[in-house]
Order: sequence, then C-alpha cells, then structure tokens
Amino acid sequence: MPDIHALLWPRHVALIGASAELESLRGRIMHTLLGHPFQGQIYPVTRSHAEVLGRQAYASVLDVPQRPDLAVLIIPAPFIPQALEDCGRAGAKAAVVLSSGFAEAVGADGSLLQADIRAIAKRYDMAVLGPNAEGFANLPAALCPTFSPALEASERALLPSGPQRGQLTVLAQSGGIGFSFFDHGRAKELAFRYIVTTGNEACLETMDIAEYALDEGKTDALIVLMEDVKSAATLRRVAEKALRAGVPIITAKIGRSEAGVRAAASHTAALAGSYQAYRAIFERYGLIEGHDIDEMIDLANAMLTWRGRLPAGKRVAICTASGGGGGWLADTCAAAGLEVPLLDPDTRARIDRHLPAYGTSQNPVDATAQAVHKIGYAGLARLVMDAPAVDGLLIVITARSPKNLAKQEAELARLAAETRKPILLWSYTLPAPQSAKLLADAGYPLFTDIRNCARAFAAMADYRARREAFLKPIEVSTTTAPDRAAARAHLAGSDSVLCQWEARPLLAAYGIGALPPGVLVQSAAAAAEAAASIGVPVALKVQSPDIAHKTEAGAVSLNLSGAAAVSTAYTALIAAAQRHAPLARIRGVLVEAMVPPGQEVILGIKRDATFGPLLLVGLGGIHVELFQDVALAPVPLSHTAARELIFRLKGARLLQSYRGGPASDIDALVDAMVRLSVLAQDFAEEIGEIDLNPIIVHPEGQGISVVDALVTKECPAAGPVATRAGA
Amino acid sequence: MPDIHALLWPRHVALIGASAELESLRGRIMHTLLGHPFQGQIYPVTRSHAEVLGRQAYASVLDVPQRPDLAVLIIPAPFIPQALEDCGRAGAKAAVVLSSGFAEAVGADGSLLQADIRAIAKRYDMAVLGPNAEGFANLPAALCPTFSPALEASERALLPSGPQRGQLTVLAQSGGIGFSFFDHGRAKELAFRYIVTTGNEACLETMDIAEYALDEGKTDALIVLMEDVKSAATLRRVAEKALRAGVPIITAKIGRSEAGVRAAASHTAALAGSYQAYRAIFERYGLIEGHDIDEMIDLANAMLTWRGRLPAGKRVAICTASGGGGGWLADTCAAAGLEVPLLDPDTRARIDRHLPAYGTSQNPVDATAQAVHKIGYAGLARLVMDAPAVDGLLIVITARSPKNLAKQEAELARLAAETRKPILLWSYTLPAPQSAKLLADAGYPLFTDIRNCARAFAAMADYRARREAFLKPIEVSTTTAPDRAAARAHLAGSDSVLCQWEARPLLAAYGIGALPPGVLVQSAAAAAEAAASIGVPVALKVQSPDIAHKTEAGAVSLNLSGAAAVSTAYTALIAAAQRHAPLARIRGVLVEAMVPPGQEVILGIKRDATFGPLLLVGLGGIHVELFQDVALAPVPLSHTAARELIFRLKGARLLQSYRGGPASDIDALVDAMVRLSVLAQDFAEEIGEIDLNPIIVHPEGQGISVVDALVTKECPAAGPVATRAGA
Repeated sequence: MPDIHALLWPRHVALIGASAELESLRGRIMHTLLGHPFQGQIYPVTRSHAEVLGRQAYASVLDVPQRPDLAVLIIPAPFIPQALEDCGRAGAKAAVVLSSGFAEAVGADGSLLQADIRAIAKRYDMAVLGPNAEGFANLPAALCPTFSPALEASERALLPSGPQRGQLTVLAQSGGIGFSFFDHGRAKELAFRYIVTTGNEACLETMDIAEYALDEGKTDALIVLMEDVKSAATLRRVAEKALRAGVPIITAKIGRSEAGVRAAASHTAALAGSYQAYRAIFERYGLIEGHDIDEMIDLANAMLTWRGRLPAGKRVAICTASGGGGGWLADTCAAAGLEVPLLDPDTRARIDRHLPAYGTSQNPVDATAQAVHKIGYAGLARLVMDAPAVDGLLIVITARSPKNLAKQEAELARLAAETRKPILLWSYTLPAPQSAKLLADAGYPLFTDIRNCARAFAAMADYRARREAFLKPIEVSTTTAPDRAAARAHLAGSDSVLCQWEARPLLAAYGIGALPPGVLVQSAAAAAEAAASIGVPVALKVQSPDIAHKTEAGAVSLNLSGAAAVSTAYTALIAAAQRHAPLARIRGVLVEAMVPPGQEVILGIKRDATFGPLLLVGLGGIHVELFQDVALAPVPLSHTAARELIFRLKGARLLQSYRGGPASDIDALVDAMVRLSVLAQDFAEEIGEIDLNPIIVHPEGQGISVVDALVTKECPAAGPVATRAGA
Repeated sequence: MPDIHALLWPRHVALIGASAELESLRGRIMHTLLGHPFQGQIYPVTRSHAEVLGRQAYASVLDVPQRPDLAVLIIPAPFIPQALEDCGRAGAKAAVVLSSGFAEAVGADGSLLQADIRAIAKRYDMAVLGPNAEGFANLPAALCPTFSPALEASERALLPSGPQRGQLTVLAQSGGIGFSFFDHGRAKELAFRYIVTTGNEACLETMDIAEYALDEGKTDALIVLMEDVKSAATLRRVAEKALRAGVPIITAKIGRSEAGVRAAASHTAALAGSYQAYRAIFERYGLIEGHDIDEMIDLANAMLTWRGRLPAGKRVAICTASGGGGGWLADTCAAAGLEVPLLDPDTRARIDRHLPAYGTSQNPVDATAQAVHKIGYAGLARLVMDAPAVDGLLIVITARSPKNLAKQEAELARLAAETRKPILLWSYTLPAPQSAKLLADAGYPLFTDIRNCARAFAAMADYRARREAFLKPIEVSTTTAPDRAAARAHLAGSDSVLCQWEARPLLAAYGIGALPPGVLVQSAAAAAEAAASIGVPVALKVQSPDIAHKTEAGAVSLNLSGAAAVSTAYTALIAAAQRHAPLARIRGVLVEAMVPPGQEVILGIKRDATFGPLLLVGLGGIHVELFQDVALAPVPLSHTAARELIFRLKGARLLQSYRGGPASDIDALVDAMVRLSVLAQDFAEEIGEIDLNPIIVHPEGQGISVVDALVTKECPAAGPVATRAGA
C-alpha cells in the first residue's frame, strides 16, 4: 500500500500549475494553501512566472530545492502523465491530481490517460488521489490543497475553539459534496480531521483513506459518500475494522435509482453495484445511512458527542416547556422507532413538585415555561434522567437567543459531563451562532430538524446494539459438515444451468433442507413405476436447463395418484414442454413425492456486480411479488444473522403460530440458510445464482422440503467479480 | 361568527396587565407591541403604574378614552373573567387571553374558568383567542400582541424588502411552535401575513382564522399545526374552500402516536381524533403533510413561488455542475416519487454544444463547473427547460458566496419571470444570507435540505392534480337510488348490534353488492329443507348479535351438501355456539348458498371521534393483518374517489389480472363502496360501525357477494360526534 501518511501529512508540497490569479482554480488553490497556518513549505511550480504570490516558482518539480513529499497537480490532462513521472523522479511519495478529462470524459483518450496515471503511481509507489478530485484538507495541520471555496481562509478558524467532542473525517469521490459537509458541520462546531475527495479513484479509493484514518486512531466518526466501491473486499474489511473500533461510518449511497446510477456512471466512470447489495452490507457492518448533508452531520454530531455513552435502548424521555413541541417530538420519535414510555410514579412525584397545575410529568414531561425558567433545562433533565424506564433524554429548547442559555451554561456543562444517558437538544427556533457554540461547548449536539433529532437517537441505539451483537463470539455450529469435494466434482461436471434434478446433489452435499424422494424417468411407464415405488401422491416435473419457469410452460403436474394418471400426465407434460420450447434439452421427468403442506418460502443466492454472492429470503407467492418483502445479506451467514434476516420480513409472523395454526420450523429454515450461504461462499467464483423456489417450511420439528431448485453457474465471460479495476 | 377582523386589524388596543419590566412576559408584550411601527393606539391597563414605557396607563379597560377594538389580557387566570367582562362592557369586539391555568391545568377550576370565558365571549359577541395562547402577529399592520421572542423588534424588518412572492399565514394552537415558523421562514425571505396561536381554543379555533384569511383573499398559502380539531365540519368546509381557491394548506398533525396524543391531551385539553382519520381528510382535500418546521417552510416557499405555475406532472430535469450532487438529487427525487427521464436527442444536442467531454446531457445534466461558469445557471436551465419530457427543473447550485450569484442575478430573475415550468434550487453549501435574499428576490425557492427539495416538487405536482380532480364536475351515477325509508324503518326496529341476517335488509335497501340466497332457520330439519331449496352447496352460520367472530366460536360450517350433512352441521353449530357463549341471543342459523370463488375484500365503516364515519377498504386475510394494507376515506365517496382508494392498496394488483388469473369486477366493488358510503352518510348519527368481511369480488362482469356482515348502531351514551365542545 502506498504511503497515505505522506499524502495527508507532508512537510514539503509542490503545486504543479501554480498561479496567482484568484479567478482561476489554480490561483484559488494557491491562495487557499497559503491562507492557513500550515507549518510546511509550499513550492509553486510553473513555467509562466518566476514567483507566485511572493514565493519563488520553479519551472519543473525537478528543480524544487527539497524533495517534495506531496505534489498537487492542476494542469491540463494530457500533460499530467509527464508531470507525474517527473514527480516520481523528484522523489514525491504522494500526489493529488485535480485535473479533469480522464475516465469520466467521453471518448477513449481520458481512460488511457487514467491508465497512465495508474502505471506511474505503481512504478514510483506513490499515493495518488484523483484524477478529477477536488483535493483534500487536513484540518489539524491547516493544510488545504483544494480549490473548494469552503476551505478558503476566513475569519473563522478551521477548528472550533471550544472543548473537542471527537474528530470527524469526511470521504467522498465528489469534491463539491465532500467539502459541503465541512460547510454544514462547521456551523455546528464540529471538529473535522480530514476531508478527502477522491474523484475518479484511479489509485486510492475512499476506503483506503478510511483504513488509514482507522489505523491512525484519531478519527472518531467517518462520513463516507459512496458513489461506487471498486473493491468490495476492502469495503468489508474496513467496515469491520471500523465497527470493531467503535468508529461509526455514516454513509450515503449515490446510485440508488436508475437516474442516480446513470449519473454516477457518467461522473466517476464506475459501474455501481445494486443498492440492495449495499444495504445488505450496511446492515451487516452497522453503517448508518443518511439521506441529506445536514442529516448526516447531525448523525455524526450525536455519535461524536455521546460515543462513549451510546444509549442501551430506544426508550426516551422528552422534556419540554412547549406542549406542542413535546407532542410533535413524541410523534417524531415514534415514527423513528423510539419509545416514549410513561414515567414511573417516583420519578413523576419528583418532577411534579416543580410543576404548576398546567404542567405534566407523564412523558413528554411538559414542565411549562414557568418551571423551566425556575429550574433550567439542566435542572429539569436531572429530575427525569434517572427514570429507569428511559435510555436517554430529548430536550425541547429554544436556542434563538443566547442570553437565557448563557445563564445555564455551567449547569448544562456539568450535566453533560456527568450523565450516563445521552441527551439531545432540539431547538424549534433557529439558534443564534453564539447559542450553537455555547451548547456545543457545553457538550451537546443541537438539532434544528426534528426528524434528525429522533433519528439520531435511534441510530445511536441501533449502532450500539449492532456492534455488541457483532463483537459476540460466533456460535459454534454442531451440524454436519458439507461434502465440498462431492459438490465441486458435481459442479465441474455440470452444464451452465442445473435444473432441479441436477441441483439436488449439490444441495444434498451441503445438507440444505430435505429433498423429497424422487426419480428421474424417461418414459410414461417408468413414471408410473416410480410413482408406485414412492407410494404417495407425486408431482411430475419436466427437467430441462432451458425451461426455468415450469408452471408457465405447462411442464409440471401436481398431486397425481395411480398409474393411469401418472402416465397420462407424463405424456402430456412432455408434449407441453416441447410445444413451449421446441429446442429445449429435456433431461427427463422428475417423479417426486408431494410433501405435506407448510409455509412457502423463497431462498436464493443473488450475485451482485460489486459484492458477489448475497443470500435472499422471502415469504413465497404474493409476498415477494406485491410487497417486495424480501431480505438480503452477504454470505456467509451465522445462525444469528440468518434468524435476524427472517425476522426482518414483514410476513415473518406467518412462520410463527399465526391464526391458531402451527408454528413453522424456523430452526430448520435457519440451518438451511446458513448451509446455503456456506455453499455460495465456497463456490463464489463458480456459482452465479441459486433459486430455491419454493421451499416448504413444515411445522416445528418437521423440517423443510426443497421442492424446486435452479442453479446457474457463473459465466466466465461476465468477468471477475470484486476486483479493483486495474489496481 | 364573531368579528375576526376586529381581532386582527384593530385600531385601538388595550393591554390588560401591562408592565415595563422586560424580564416578565407582560413587559415583553409591551416592548414588542411598541417596538414595531403599528399605526394604531396602544393603551396599557394596570393598577400598579400611572404610565408604562412612556404611555399613560389606565386602572381599568373601562377608563380607556377610546373604545378598544382589541383587548390583550395577561393577568392571572382567576381574574380573567371579570376583566373580560369589563372589556365587553367597554365595547371591545375582540380579545386575546394569554394567561395559562385553564382547561389545560390539573383540577376542575381551570375548566370552569374556561367555560366562563366562553360565556362572556358569547354574551358580548367577542372574537376571543385563547386562553393559554401566545398571541398573534399581523405583519402587514406591524401589530404583534405576543410575548414570543421571535417577534421582538430587531434590525431586521418584519417583512422582506424584495418583490413579494405571495403571503403566508401560520396557524397553531402552540405558541412556541407557531412563532418558530416565522423564525425559520424569515431566514428564507418569506412574507408572512398572519401568525395566530390559538392556545386552548375556548372560542376561536385555527380553522375559524383560516376561513377568515381565505375569505379575505390575501393569503396565498397556509401553514396549520393541528393538535386537535374541535369541529370536523369546519375543517372540511375550510379545507374545501382553500382547495377551491388554490390556497394550499401545509399541515402537521400532533398526536400521531400514543405519546403524542397524551401530550396533546394534557397540553390543549382536547381529545384527538385518530391520525388515520386525519390522513383520510388530508388526502380528500389535498392538505400537504409536513414533518418538520423547515420542511413545512420549504413546502410553503415552493408553493408561494410557483403558485400560478404548478407542475403538470412529476418528471424533472436535474441541472448540475457537481456530478455527485446531481446523482444524489436524482436518487432523492426517485425516493420522493419523481421521475428523472432521459432527455430527447434534440434537447441533448442543444446542451451538448456547451459541454466539455467530461459533461453529460442525459439527465441529470452534468454540465461541469466549466460550462456553468460560462453560461450560468440560467443559461443552462434555458437549454433544458423546453425538453418535452420534463415538467420542471431542479438546479444544483452552490450558494455559499453571493459574489458569483450576483453576476447572474438579472438573468436568473428574467428566467423566473418567463418560465412556465417551476424551477427549484438546491444548494449543497450553506447559503450566505445575501445569497438567500438574492435568490429569493430573483424569484426562486432555495433549499438546503435535499429531501425537502425533491419533496416540494412532488407536493406541488400532487396538489395540482388533486385540485384539478376535485374541481371536475362530479360524475352522475345512473344506478338505482337507495330505499332510504326502508333502511330507516329497519334500523329503527333493530337492536344495537345487527348480525348478518339482520344486516342484509339494510344492504339490500342500498343495493350494496349481491346477497347470496339464504334462509334463516330454527331447526336441523328446516336447515336441510332450506339447503335443498337453495340447491347448491351451502354455508351454515349461527346468527347472534353476541357472537361477532363466528369462526373462532365454531359457529360456521362451509361447503355443505345433502340433508344429512346439513342437519348434522346445524346441531353441531348450535351446540358449539352455546358452549362458546352460553348467554348469547341466538336468532337462528343462516343457510346461505356458497358463492363462487373470487378475491376476498374487506369493506367497512369506521367511526372516528372527530370526523364521524369513514369508509375502509382492504384486501382480505393477511393483507390487512400483516401489512396494514387498508385505505380510508371520509364519506360519501364519488366513483372516482372509490376507485382511487382501491388503487392506493399495495395489493390492488390482486384485483387486476394477476398471474394469468381473471381480472376482478372492480366496477362492482366501486359501486358497492359508493353505496356503502351513502348509507353511512345518510345514517351518520344512527350507525356506529359496519363490517363487511369478507366481500367476494368475482371476475369482471360477475359482481360481488357480501358473505358476512355486522352492523353496530351508534350508542347514544358515547355522546354526540363532531360537535364543538361547548361552543
């Protein structure tokens, strides 16, 4: 891995393409670089001038008197390869390429230039950001090699002056959006560590920087705007590292819609994986999804402030002097999945002593303006915070004028330092900047958006729960091990599509569910004979890798008894299949025992372009089709994860005792899911998709039956999965 | 109706309880009243001082030299009745009672005092706001009788100085929240007309003020925070008036959750109707629901700006210089129900002429910073706006610095004046106040929350579509008229609960669906005879007003053929019913023809505490139970509204041709819904609930069958519905 430390913490910086003209991007970088108290040296490189803004300029990076740690390049794309080569020869360990016109541009030239960058970076082992990046900022070092207006020097310091509540690192491909987080977060007194925009990611991608930040150990929360992820393996490794370290990743995924994918493809020249797959990864590793810049800043603010004291649950008390505000926040909490429980009599009695007749301690605790005026927000919070029924507090305040808050500052700061339950503040009036600073310094995240306030509390609780579950030792599975060799041999000998009969040995090798007794036959007589030997009503199903939807093709017949019915059905099915698909390769007809009734479930493996195999589970029939009631997870799955996945389905209740019916054998389903996920993991390169549709889940203790199956092998022509384009 | 004009537009104002002390609420009102250039007279009334802030004070309102139009009262609750009486005697036509300690307080005294206020207001025909209100503001008159800090005089004028984009009126019970809309909206250069906070609403409620504002014709959009609605009839009348006038109502309902209801009850002493019922009303009359102060202000801003030019559909073009920003906005649009279609070749060719190789015209139109720098946001918008595929434009901008925008101001203003398609701006950077003013003056709503931006466009399109549908002439129904007299007589002769057999004549009188042939019998022999005469398989169902859930009671038996089976079933059913409910009154057993299969649907009438009868429709079985897939609407319904309601169900596809099955007879279902809604409307006072569960909807042209029914009469003990508490 190239030296990201040299990129982010250089002492000597060469700016290739430096200019003094404030109207140009080149000039803006120079002004921005020099406008902050960076302790290292800046060397302008340009052929046009002997000096730039009072600094001696050099015609080539090779002329710079010191070996530059970092080169910042902003010259037209066609000149970049030569200049970068020079930087390598000059001994630069890192470079930022700000120029556009590479893989994101129409035509092949840009992509070739981008390949050049990659090759040069590799040759010199340089840490290269971009091209088409907007640069980065290292706030503690006051180093801002970027033309983002958000980082221009102003009277406001780069870092807040008050006590620090942890440091935030922002990573984005998009420069405009990346730096806008700084703009929004600075207004909320957040301390940023790095803001890094990666552009086309020819070499370094956001997750590489994230890993550096995690290894460094100074970043307390990450905001990552994801346009695409070039290496799924890196994302999973970094996400796991972050979760173990307790550094939350707040993320937004661009490319959730068709138009968004279109935009991402044109913008960063990347093929995005499916959003469903991203969500499955986010859920596995506890990434927190945001949908707006301010919302993500608000989430980060809450996480940074309360990171050592995340709530143990989702039960909140609401303290308010505004009845309307309290009610509104209560509704918003409920919508965000929080509980607002009635408080216990002891707590209420303690509160009631301070309330006038028109206040109430029930929760929301509407203390009235009169009581809050007397005891202050902190005083009110202290009356409520020990209530055993709640995991945290939300206080409705008005932060319009700092005057009233200033009187309470010391008390509020003491409370923030002492409380073991997190406290969030929602101001219904717009806070004055001094109010925002005062409350941040006192140790509170302040919200103006009521939805963000409730959401942040819920996200804190979810994150803690997800992390604790993740850190638990993994349960040891006692069930039989799969016969990998048999599966491998069977797969190797199969065509590209395995019909049910051909899929059965694969499922058997991994012990995935029970396979009903069945025989493959080639004649009506053999069918009748097979049915007789099976001895219960049977289903007849034409087996062909070319007929995926048997019902639509008329290639299946159910509930047959007796030789006559079976042989008639055989003949009819073969005829129907040939009519439906005259060229289909027909392996024969599967005569299979009808299984007892149960709940229909769909189980499958989907293949994502970025993340590879994902397991899918859904209730059968209309649930999947009408309500999109399916859940996805990356493989492999633990038993716990499989069970969680089932209960993420809205229709999961159908598997429990429903309307007096028997409960279904969820344990058996979980076992099958785990085994299927291991199969998909073991043959990630060989298997494309698996479709077990349906599985019948029988009543508790009676297992599950796989009554149809289709396996598609991965077509090598589709290219390798989860490899970094060219890296 | 008392004189709301005197309340909002007084010339002479008496302040009962005036004080000069800035620390007290009384003093704050006085300062606020005098701080703005109100052209009328303010008369302080207090026994404590001879003058207040330089104005002569009077010991009683009766001493004031001019008849006060408006009295503002802020003295302890127990003194209010006498003071209000004096105001009446002094000839005041309006009063605002700011004091707390009335119906919202624990104990009976407050409620009695509140009743006093009501009686006095009635006696003197005074327009009384409150008690427990925070006052109001009439911004054009610069009249602010309120202690809200948001209205304190400051260097910022009450109204924006730029060109007006329409006036906004805000109505809320809660004072704190009500005035916070002003705080947030002023930052966005909105022109407010009135902000009125109504508190406990002893006399005037928000909807009364809304009606005044609509009749006055100067309000272009309304924001209404609803804690409860005392008169459903007023809400419906006012909502309809607003929709006809094209004045959108943006609303938030407090009391959507259990805790929210609790808060609202304690805060405003009101019993809230169910949120589901509110939503049904909102949908009927096109009220736009918001969930955050800023979001509602953003919605109002968009509506005010583009009110004459609302979008004809939901297809948008996105213009951007930031690829990441464009992609994010595209995703957000898709999530908000908007389309971001590819643009046509002509439009793309026109755009492409201006783009560098790394831009794209597909949509999002990523013009790159380079092109936008050259042609400006307006220039870009003009290239895109005529694309036939889109109904409006969203432009991604950076409004951080006003410098760049200032150069474009004239072009932007010209564009805003000329465009027939609405244009919304989303700035990913925080706008400087000058930027916000500049863009508002140029005629644009500016968004910083990306979700609000997309939502606002969708809301504009929805509002226009809802309004146009509402204004269409109502279709004439050609089906047979209901036999109201028969229904009335039957209802009058019935007990409080009508079992299926008893409900059938009611349904028949209104022609609601087909009733399968059936006979009520009292013996096994009669059952067998009835079955024979019906001639097809029958169902036997015990008829008892005391057994609502027949299946659970074992009181129903299906698909019986032959005398033996029928008479055996009769005996078994009676025994089971008596075992289940020994005291149940049993009317007999209904022998009813089994109906052919079809789609199960639930149809019903629910009764809301505030809004009275609402029609409910849902797909039968698990759809209702697991997915809460039901839709509600106020009665009566037009055919169009009934059809819309069906297609709001996620499972509506099951009624269309699904998986190759036949399409269901939706026309017949619609007809039954309309008729049921008329029945519910006709007997709104007599009927409590109706439950037709299930209805079988047969294939197209074959109608529907009502196979079970239960009607509950309204219990008079439950009190009158939808009347104004004490008004």
